[in-house]
Amino acid sequence: MPDESFISEPPKELVLPDGFRFTHGQVISPFTIVYETFGALNAEKSNAILVCHALSASAHAAGKYAPEDKPGWWDGLVGFSKPIDLDKYFVVCVNLPGSPFGTTAPKNVDPATGKAYGSRYPWPTIEDMVQSQKIVIDHLGISHLRSIAGGSLGGMQVLMWCAMYPDFSDSIIAMATGSAVPVTGIAWHILGRKIIEADQCFKGGDYYDDDERAGESLRGLQVARMLGHMTYLSAESLQRKFGRRRRGNTRQFEIDSYFEYQGQKFAALYDANSYIRVQAAMDEMDLEEQYGDLKTAFARWRGRTLLVSFDTDWLFPPIETERVAAAMRALGIEAHHEAMISANGHDTFLMDYDLISPAVRAFLR
Amino acid sequence: MPDESFISEPPKELVLPDGFRFTHGQVISPFTIVYETFGALNAEKSNAILVCHALSASAHAAGKYAPEDKPGWWDGLVGFSKPIDLDKYFVVCVNLPGSPFGTTAPKNVDPATGKAYGSRYPWPTIEDMVQSQKIVIDHLGISHLRSIAGGSLGGMQVLMWCAMYPDFSDSIIAMATGSAVPVTGIAWHILGRKIIEADQCFKGGDYYDDDERAGESLRGLQVARMLGHMTYLSAESLQRKFGRRRRGNTRQFEIDSYFEYQGQKFAALYDANSYIRVQAAMDEMDLEEQYGDLKTAFARWRGRTLLVSFDTDWLFPPIETERVAAAMRALGIEAHHEAMISANGHDTFLMDYDLISPAVRAFLR
Repeated sequence: MPDESFISEPPKELVLPDGFRFTHGQVISPFTIVYETFGALNAEKSNAILVCHALSASAHAAGKYAPEDKPGWWDGLVGFSKPIDLDKYFVVCVNLPGSPFGTTAPKNVDPATGKAYGSRYPWPTIEDMVQSQKIVIDHLGISHLRSIAGGSLGGMQVLMWCAMYPDFSDSIIAMATGSAVPVTGIAWHILGRKIIEADQCFKGGDYYDDDERAGESLRGLQVARMLGHMTYLSAESLQRKFGRRRRGNTRQFEIDSYFEYQGQKFAALYDANSYIRVQAAMDEMDLEEQYGDLKTAFARWRGRTLLVSFDTDWLFPPIETERVAAAMRALGIEAHHEAMISANGHDTFLMDYDLISPAVRAFLR
Repeated sequence: MPDESFISEPPKELVLPDGFRFTHGQVISPFTIVYETFGALNAEKSNAILVCHALSASAHAAGKYAPEDKPGWWDGLVGFSKPIDLDKYFVVCVNLPGSPFGTTAPKNVDPATGKAYGSRYPWPTIEDMVQSQKIVIDHLGISHLRSIAGGSLGGMQVLMWCAMYPDFSDSIIAMATGSAVPVTGIAWHILGRKIIEADQCFKGGDYYDDDERAGESLRGLQVARMLGHMTYLSAESLQRKFGRRRRGNTRQFEIDSYFEYQGQKFAALYDANSYIRVQAAMDEMDLEEQYGDLKTAFARWRGRTLLVSFDTDWLFPPIETERVAAAMRALGIEAHHEAMISANGHDTFLMDYDLISPAVRAFLR
């Protein structure tokens, strides 16, 4: 697999002059959806794959805007001659409602008030995320997808597509995910939200004071991210990377220094209102609760299905993936569950391309 | 095993007029050590067992002060006809330096300044905890112990006794513990300390304003405790107790409501300066680092040894216990490692007496 990335196109904007209606009823109008595309759509518009991003990522799934930039978040999987092969497929990735990377977000100014939406921004759902993707896909004139792929929160969107638009794609690829976040993950997420809300500077979400970057130094967001980041790792990877080692000649544990680096880096890029909303959306999705049971949720889905789990994943242990696979198989769906062995926990789907690429390549062949 | 508890004696105070010297050199003078005793010391003073408490507990290991009170933290194990049998043994438990339950603590007023020690209170070590216990044992005229027992932080004190005073006890019982906290636990602890320190009301530890109970409503301590509490559970117990269930007719997850209950209850009883210090003491202990290797740490220990671990323990997985057991066996020490199966994680040693009692009873017989 070639290591080089490619130069990607800049993000595109789709402005909805009549606004976007959230599941819970609120409308933000106008509403901008930012998305990126990779590769070329064929004349029949029949070679499109939708890629769904996770919590901390953006529409920038692959490639680099310029040679000196960092590549997109799934660059190891999406590219020319890569498993999601741009010689063959046209890939679309949509920045989800709530996320601070382009699509109208809590930190953006409401033209009606001249102030950031802040606490008034709706609490989006996974259905809203799917809906925003559907709007972009429709806008591009694509009436059918070859596949829909994603991991973690992205994988939850993939499964939601099967329930909401079961005829729309030939196949799905969902990694490190499930039809609902189990209680362990809910607990970590709730703690993260409490940490942010406990920060006196958070002010109930209205902390911008006419500066959409005011949230960048929120200590609550930094510490919440440290906790979040930890849950994406595993006991093995923590032991291997850090153990009980101290930093240089100091008594500070290396894991402490690493947490500070990750927390500060993340808070400078992300936004606290976005963080609590996107995580809450994950926690609220529960296909069993919403459809009665998983067989009903997937009753009309008939596409080929690749589900991938990792044995050390703290957030979505393999049993969560297997529940989805079992429900699908009971419906006669061709569902492959690749239960992979990895020391890297939840984030394996973003890290270990040697491990995941062969399965994706074989599945899409 | 009888379920009834007994009426225990009130806590006792030992005042050190010349003060207590901490490992790191500071002296607090005078210094009060609070301890409790259970059962009767025989004439030869040869029937004493030292029990070591963990982070959130106190010297009140067993019994009730009055019939309507809650029993002590190890009441299931310590009592008349119980595995640590008060018909036979005299049990001592010492409130550790740093803890807010009687022994001179950060929240107490420094007579020299008229203000709480607060941020000026030393950062105690596990050695300091052992030293305070040794002072009480010496004060009671006991020159040899039948056993030293504890779990978690208490178990770390037990192992430190083997290193510091290897000739002082016939045996030890250490549960859910190790010779050092592995990186996963350090990470949780560091996050807890960051949550507390991020609370603007914490004021670097000087939040008392002439009121030693000022820390009771610190949100940072509440949230840190929720995180700590979570690490004492397990994925299985969280799933069984809470799953994704909501509270009543609300959308609040039951785990959220449980966290709030536990966090608020704990913060009302504990103290933030104590919390960060006692957890840091756990993280700093590392017998391998301190002695070069575990065989050197235990080189002079010869007593009978019962080590107990629980398969779902997130803080001290069984492999940590087995490392201690293996080092001891290599020295010819009779070390039993009972690797127990439990759904209840770290806190099994405080909860599941049906599971742990037979091993303790058989060991002490």
